[in-house]
Amino acid sequence: MDTGSNRRRNLEGEVAKLVTIKLVSFDVYMALIDIQGSLTPVTAAALDLDTEAADEFVRLWRAKQMERAAASNSLGLGRTLFRDCTRMGLDYVLARHGIDLPDDQRRELVSAWDAIRPWPEAIELVGEVKNRGYVTAILSNGDHDMLAALAKPFGDKMDHILSAESAGVYKPHPAVYDLPETELKIAKADVLHVAGSGNDVMGAIATGMRCYWSNRNGDRVIDTTYVPTGEGADLTGVLELL
Amino acid sequence: MDTGSNRRRNLEGEVAKLVTIKLVSFDVYMALIDIQGSLTPVTAAALDLDTEAADEFVRLWRAKQMERAAASNSLGLGRTLFRDCTRMGLDYVLARHGIDLPDDQRRELVSAWDAIRPWPEAIELVGEVKNRGYVTAILSNGDHDMLAALAKPFGDKMDHILSAESAGVYKPHPAVYDLPETELKIAKADVLHVAGSGNDVMGAIATGMRCYWSNRNGDRVIDTTYVPTGEGADLTGVLELL
Repeated sequence: MDTGSNRRRNLEGEVAKLVTIKLVSFDVYMALIDIQGSLTPVTAAALDLDTEAADEFVRLWRAKQMERAAASNSLGLGRTLFRDCTRMGLDYVLARHGIDLPDDQRRELVSAWDAIRPWPEAIELVGEVKNRGYVTAILSNGDHDMLAALAKPFGDKMDHILSAESAGVYKPHPAVYDLPETELKIAKADVLHVAGSGNDVMGAIATGMRCYWSNRNGDRVIDTTYVPTGEGADLTGVLELL
Repeated sequence: MDTGSNRRRNLEGEVAKLVTIKLVSFDVYMALIDIQGSLTPVTAAALDLDTEAADEFVRLWRAKQMERAAASNSLGLGRTLFRDCTRMGLDYVLARHGIDLPDDQRRELVSAWDAIRPWPEAIELVGEVKNRGYVTAILSNGDHDMLAALAKPFGDKMDHILSAESAGVYKPHPAVYDLPETELKIAKADVLHVAGSGNDVMGAIATGMRCYWSNRNGDRVIDTTYVPTGEGADLTGVLELL
């Protein structure tokens, strides 16, 4: 037994596994776009809050939006639209703050979720992934129309939009991670998913995908049995796995 | 058409519906017991934190425990034990605080969840419900052994323990609210559930139960289409529905 040679073969096996990647799928709301940076000034202006208060407001809004989406998976009554989860989250935080806002201003704030800006390196990174010959896709909890709006700044660098709306459930439900297979006929083994949160890492890894975690806040997966394939403080680390 | 008489008949119908209550089921972790009040001093002592820091610590611990439980429903890989969700939540918060704690001390802190004290009025309230002739039960996300420990202070005032462990999922999944029917042969229409959180209200009302919300923190259901049958700042309001 030549241990050195075995080790090399194992390493070659690892590399062979990695080179089967055909599709790089991207989470949107955490991985590709900057919720806090985009919505904090909008919220501050609309509600006359200082930056710190607006930042807190957006954080709770996001938490409640996601809590309602998680409840949608559990209740078994079909998928509540993400726009409705977003609206309910807003109504919740407004009520907690004792702010009474007319319906049209609430609609405007919900629409601000369609104009969240990509992280500084996001558009170039997606372009580079595409230049290297991979298929690119958004794979996100957002509704189709919300994702279509968010995909615009990426132009033809983004090949496909895969919405949890098609799966009828939210991440980390496996049906969402099935979308590359059901919609693009690309097997999970050929996908590298770029996650923006520990929840997304858990879902992707549990379903058998490889997963890079763009972990901007130095967060940690709650359940450490789900280990991301790669991890970094922004999106650029994706390229090291390609 | 005698509108007055119709109105009276409707009212009698409402009353008739209410008097069919046979079982009063109680959520534990928010409705019956005081997580923050019980765990804050234990955590402060174990980790040498001041009360404010310990209070924050327990809040995040609880949030991550529940996040992992919600993920368990979505992942579709069976129910992760609630004790394991609790342990993962603790590990998460310790890591975020940069605290390295030996395994036996982590186990001790997780065990502290078996000794959380009832709210001041809880034992007497459950006793009064039972005195009035209703069947009483715990209906909770906790594992069987965790709930058995928490039920002890209630003695023979608590007739049954219904654990989400039997349902294989967590609230607000309807299978948990089916437990009175599957385990006690008591129909949902004959149950008044006492919820401790908006999530629990949503699940109980969605499944067709009546539901009283012991809403100690003046919280609000995220999705206001789910309206509790009754609501108050502590458990005593339950009696008004009986």
